[in-house]
Amino acid sequence: MRILVVNPNTTASMTQTIAHAALQVAGRDTEISALTSPMGPVSIEGYYDEAFAVPGLLMEIAKGQKAGADAVVIACFDDTGLDAARAFADIPVVGICESAVKMASFIARRFTIVTTMERSRIPIEELVKRYGVADSARVRAADISVLSLEDPQSNARDRLRSEIDAATREDRAEAIILGCAGMADLAHDLTREFGLPVIDGVSAAVKQAEALVGLGLSTAKRGPYATPVAKKYTGQLEAFAPQTLNSEVSTR
Amino acid sequence: MRILVVNPNTTASMTQTIAHAALQVAGRDTEISALTSPMGPVSIEGYYDEAFAVPGLLMEIAKGQKAGADAVVIACFDDTGLDAARAFADIPVVGICESAVKMASFIARRFTIVTTMERSRIPIEELVKRYGVADSARVRAADISVLSLEDPQSNARDRLRSEIDAATREDRAEAIILGCAGMADLAHDLTREFGLPVIDGVSAAVKQAEALVGLGLSTAKRGPYATPVAKKYTGQLEAFAPQTLNSEVSTR
Amino acid sequence: MRILVVNPNTTASMTQTIAHAALQVAGRDTEISALTSPMGPVSIEGYYDEAFAVPGLLMEIAKGQKAGADAVVIACFDDTGLDAARAFADIPVVGICESAVKMASFIARRFTIVTTMERSRIPIEELVKRYGVADSARVRAADISVLSLEDPQSNARDRLRSEIDAATREDRAEAIILGCAGMADLAHDLTREFGLPVIDGVSAAVKQAEALVGLGLSTAKRGPYATPVAKKYTGQLEAFAPQTLNSEVSTR
Amino acid sequence: MRILVVNPNTTASMTQTIAHAALQVAGRDTEISALTSPMGPVSIEGYYDEAFAVPGLLMEIAKGQKAGADAVVIACFDDTGLDAARAFADIPVVGICESAVKMASFIARRFTIVTTMERSRIPIEELVKRYGVADSARVRAADISVLSLEDPQSNARDRLRSEIDAATREDRAEAIILGCAGMADLAHDLTREFGLPVIDGVSAAVKQAEALVGLGLSTAKRGPYATPVAKKYTGQLEAFAPQTLNSEVSTR
Amino acid sequence: MRILVVNPNTTASMTQTIAHAALQVAGRDTEISALTSPMGPVSIEGYYDEAFAVPGLLMEIAKGQKAGADAVVIACFDDTGLDAARAFADIPVVGICESAVKMASFIARRFTIVTTMERSRIPIEELVKRYGVADSARVRAADISVLSLEDPQSNARDRLRSEIDAATREDRAEAIILGCAGMADLAHDLTREFGLPVIDGVSAAVKQAEALVGLGLSTAKRGPYATPVAKKYTGQLEAFAPQTLNSEVSTR
Amino acid sequence: MRILVVNPNTTASMTQTIAHAALQVAGRDTEISALTSPMGPVSIEGYYDEAFAVPGLLMEIAKGQKAGADAVVIACFDDTGLDAARAFADIPVVGICESAVKMASFIARRFTIVTTMERSRIPIEELVKRYGVADSARVRAADISVLSLEDPQSNARDRLRSEIDAATREDRAEAIILGCAGMADLAHDLTREFGLPVIDGVSAAVKQAEALVGLGLSTAKRGPYATPVAKKYTGQLEAFAPQTLNSEVSTR
Repeated sequence: MRILVVNPNTTASMTQTIAHAALQVAGRDTEISALTSPMGPVSIEGYYDEAFAVPGLLMEIAKGQKAGADAVVIACFDDTGLDAARAFADIPVVGICESAVKMASFIARRFTIVTTMERSRIPIEELVKRYGVADSARVRAADISVLSLEDPQSNARDRLRSEIDAATREDRAEAIILGCAGMADLAHDLTREFGLPVIDGVSAAVKQAEALVGLGLSTAKRGPYATPVAKKYTGQLEAFAPQTLNSEVSTR
Repeated sequence: MRILVVNPNTTASMTQTIAHAALQVAGRDTEISALTSPMGPVSIEGYYDEAFAVPGLLMEIAKGQKAGADAVVIACFDDTGLDAARAFADIPVVGICESAVKMASFIARRFTIVTTMERSRIPIEELVKRYGVADSARVRAADISVLSLEDPQSNARDRLRSEIDAATREDRAEAIILGCAGMADLAHDLTREFGLPVIDGVSAAVKQAEALVGLGLSTAKRGPYATPVAKKYTGQLEAFAPQTLNSEVSTR
Repeated sequence: MRILVVNPNTTASMTQTIAHAALQVAGRDTEISALTSPMGPVSIEGYYDEAFAVPGLLMEIAKGQKAGADAVVIACFDDTGLDAARAFADIPVVGICESAVKMASFIARRFTIVTTMERSRIPIEELVKRYGVADSARVRAADISVLSLEDPQSNARDRLRSEIDAATREDRAEAIILGCAGMADLAHDLTREFGLPVIDGVSAAVKQAEALVGLGLSTAKRGPYATPVAKKYTGQLEAFAPQTLNSEVSTR
Repeated sequence: MRILVVNPNTTASMTQTIAHAALQVAGRDTEISALTSPMGPVSIEGYYDEAFAVPGLLMEIAKGQKAGADAVVIACFDDTGLDAARAFADIPVVGICESAVKMASFIARRFTIVTTMERSRIPIEELVKRYGVADSARVRAADISVLSLEDPQSNARDRLRSEIDAATREDRAEAIILGCAGMADLAHDLTREFGLPVIDGVSAAVKQAEALVGLGLSTAKRGPYATPVAKKYTGQLEAFAPQTLNSEVSTR
Repeated sequence: MRILVVNPNTTASMTQTIAHAALQVAGRDTEISALTSPMGPVSIEGYYDEAFAVPGLLMEIAKGQKAGADAVVIACFDDTGLDAARAFADIPVVGICESAVKMASFIARRFTIVTTMERSRIPIEELVKRYGVADSARVRAADISVLSLEDPQSNARDRLRSEIDAATREDRAEAIILGCAGMADLAHDLTREFGLPVIDGVSAAVKQAEALVGLGLSTAKRGPYATPVAKKYTGQLEAFAPQTLNSEVSTR
Repeated sequence: MRILVVNPNTTASMTQTIAHAALQVAGRDTEISALTSPMGPVSIEGYYDEAFAVPGLLMEIAKGQKAGADAVVIACFDDTGLDAARAFADIPVVGICESAVKMASFIARRFTIVTTMERSRIPIEELVKRYGVADSARVRAADISVLSLEDPQSNARDRLRSEIDAATREDRAEAIILGCAGMADLAHDLTREFGLPVIDGVSAAVKQAEALVGLGLSTAKRGPYATPVAKKYTGQLEAFAPQTLNSEVSTR
């Protein structure tokens, strides 16, 4: 089984963190391909960056699918481009936010997501509503930038710890979800430190993808995820017409 | 990895159907133990049967946990006894309704559950609300008894087919969920017949359990799922006091 | 009119508190039978105890119905076994949580339930959602055990008072609901002490039951509360098959 | 115990129907005073009539309270003026819609309200949402005028029957609520005819009022139902200033 | 275009504040008629006052419509009488609460309404739910009387400021809505003082009314807003029968 | 006042339809600039097209803002790129779906949106939920392609009519919303034909934009719509880094 894990930002070092987390949990028969988006923002912080992360993400999915991937993980906690990817791909696509919150809902009744920037709090609250866990999940922001997580000099991890601590006391959180792919390597230590389940979305998504493939399930192609209509795309985005993206990739 | 699949009714032939479905999807490293409840109703049709299926279920979970199980699947679509089991067990416990609907939510936006008896429709609608998919899921009853599914002379399967057909037309269902553990063997054929994903809860739950174990996640023991308080149980149920059930089982 | 009030735990002294509260409000023509469950946990603290309180409860309901009861009150704030009881009984069945919150909704727009243990908070929040008062009701736990309410040496009542006080200030509660049958004797004094309506669920349920009987209303026997299907129950629970429970009781 | 039942329209013959229904269910110790509003519309059909039924209603409540009433029933299914009445009165006030739907929720999980005119359907749906039963209750209009219910020549009762019939088939209603005070006399016959509980709001409200009085509960006077601030009212409505209405009535 | 702005309380000085705010934002081609209700309470503080503000309001609407108004603004933040007015009038009618919250929803995802008295908090929360912004809007009360806003000696404005300050910190409000027509003149200064959008409902409603008129849209006359049925009104309210109110006004 | 109306697909003839509708309702002092996206899909039919319409849309917004626009209308019923545009722009941005449904909510309690393709139905239902009108709005698809609306030979308009007809009968719609910018020219005739308000989103959005500008309101820059963080964008999308897009445009 081959699972394509796409980091939709263009920071390769973060892809390494993501790949590491994915490999830790992948099944014996699962091969992980972790890829970095070839174009767009170096980090995804809010709605604007999110919009420009989609083309690179879809290009990688087109390539991965061509190369025989069995499922796709979108490794950004905003679940960037999830709907477009599901319509485009013939294989199952999972987001790390949706995987994390649904996985958490099997083991806890109240849990808290701790994300990076305040500007991402409302977008994640919207996802939480869409995924049906609004009564269970609270969202907190540690007020740190995404890339500061990679900087050993920054106080990012301390701020994260301090929000987790507040979540256990004020929200009576029974479990914690790490609300950024760049935190994927911290789940293990934080679980031990706080004595309650700390869930990383990348890991959750890999197991979710394995489960879907194992069940032989892929995106239903009726309704909103029907295959995009072949049509002309113009200008700088010409190559992204759905039929073109598929065939371009196949001829490379 | 050992997954305990408990059929909370006492009909052993249904346990075979369930075991078969579980084995079809279990990973290479997963061992499935499918057990039949030692006491209670021969089939679970509505709230009353459900209540009396819980003691036998918990007894099997106590035994299974003692014997080294890594996770439990409760193989009845009412998710009978799920909360009590989660509080009691130290290993993750998943229901087949919750597994099926959450799995479906990764591949479809609108889906329909087809269950057996009309009296189970509202209980399943309540689960659907609890699991956060009320906007996505419709519930239909085929008006058949649970055990008629095992009777080749009955028209149970035809009625089931006819409700699936109605779901695709009237509900615009993008996927179907089979709303009874006794239907576990039908998913494959119905998927082909109707040309859209047909999901069986037992299979979904096995993969869900594997995913949780693979992530090292178990039920959070803060709040509603904290370990039951040791206390005296009296009368016919004396042996079910939480501390007693655990130790009784261990000395057998 | 005869109202059967069943204490689904096995602590007879708590049944006395309950009976006392019931008698205080019962109408001139109402006869109260307060019974203690013959089997199961000595107190109901969370999901596990709840599951094992159901068989004893249903046995008492079967007996009470045989003996001519006109309605049943389930005197545990988790509304333990309410759905099974409604399906089984031919007479109306009311829970004390549902009675209390619906009664409160006629006199206040925002109210707070104060229960005993933290582990019961989420189960009661789920009931609150089911009963349609999620926008009106908050739930607080005083962090006391159920039986400590009977112990004059414990600080249980002080903790309860302290949560009521917090509810009036922080939740702007207009009324208070006592979230445990064991608190039934405190409503009167707390009403005076805090100067706002303090509602006890046992009393509320007795008046609710009288109202239903007075209206000639009983559980609708279509859909989820249809009479349980007669079927074989096995093992230790054989006697609880619906048809058996009814006839066994009748021949005693 | 004295319960004041106010018909907020000015049609005395409808008050008789209401009084009759109230007396049928009133307890042995309950005295019913059924009064007709002294001013306003002859029937309440939609939002406009509703607004002008409030002054007469409040005048009767002021008088009734002065005369020693223990509780008030507002006998119009729109629950006309309920909030204003609760703020004004020192005794409990119940609406017939809220009483009926909450009473129904103790005996059925899905029920249908059948009202008179299409223009009342949405207002009742709003009440249904407010009372927390939106998932349980459907609303249908029989497309008849309120006063036609009193006309033996009209086909009003046939249309009502036909909607009840549709509700049992299409909505799978387990119980029916009659959505107009003018239908109060029909509940008994329709219950027999359709073989399922048919609930009249006037009767339900009388028992609800008895229950509240029996519990010693009255409207909480914190927050939205705090006693109205004494202030000047001008023009034609001068006499309705809260302090004036109270004292005027008392000097009569 | 002529927009009728009705102050449904009888305090003329408040009408001046309202008129001033309306004129500030009215388009070049818009004529504003600001009128004071001829009867009822001097200020609207809670449900009781609200009920008695409706007759005067509808009388002014009848007159204004006769005189050729193109739209109506109801200038009280409780949206007093909105439904009755919509059914009665042939021209569009907008409330200031609904206009403010919907306008705010175009520029912010989380905003806070600051109103006057605590007793108005729950009524406004109900409006917020009805208008579909319950997830976006919080409501706070500054604990001041409506008319104190007009008193330069009172500390009303300081209390208002203090709640706005709390909203920006505790609710993370991105914008503020002033929850009383009597605050209409403060929006400009508070916007500058707090550095975030502060929205006045009167201004919002005037622009909303202009938009509806500009689109040629008026209240749909099917369903709940169908023209009231002509019928007899009796007693002191005789002149308010819908057909009478229309013709009386026209003959003046 | 200058309002920029961006057609986010690349079909210039549709921009003309849109411009025409905008001009019909624009105020005397409003200047309309209707622009066609310079890159991306020729029509937006589902999630995939939507994602690729965003870059061209944002480029036009950057240019328009530079050129002095006061507000932006995004003229696609999926409200494509709305959140990214709000974060990016310093001027108010409105979508045509959100404008239409909020405008409709001032004149009707139940309304139906008729869109083009079935695959757009669920995305619009999600918007409807987000905009708080899920209880009021139904969504129907006429099963026509977007560009067929421009083809006089197609039966697109007949199908649209037939869905409107069904909406008035089956949904009891009080008003209709046209769910595609390409239908903007049909509102006037359909209003006359069906005798109920038929609302076009482009017109609604123009008036909404005028209202916001008239009130001096723009997007709150706290929280999710804070100005995007300046950062490196790579590859083909380099020019879209927020700081670059702003300055590039300004130097042209």
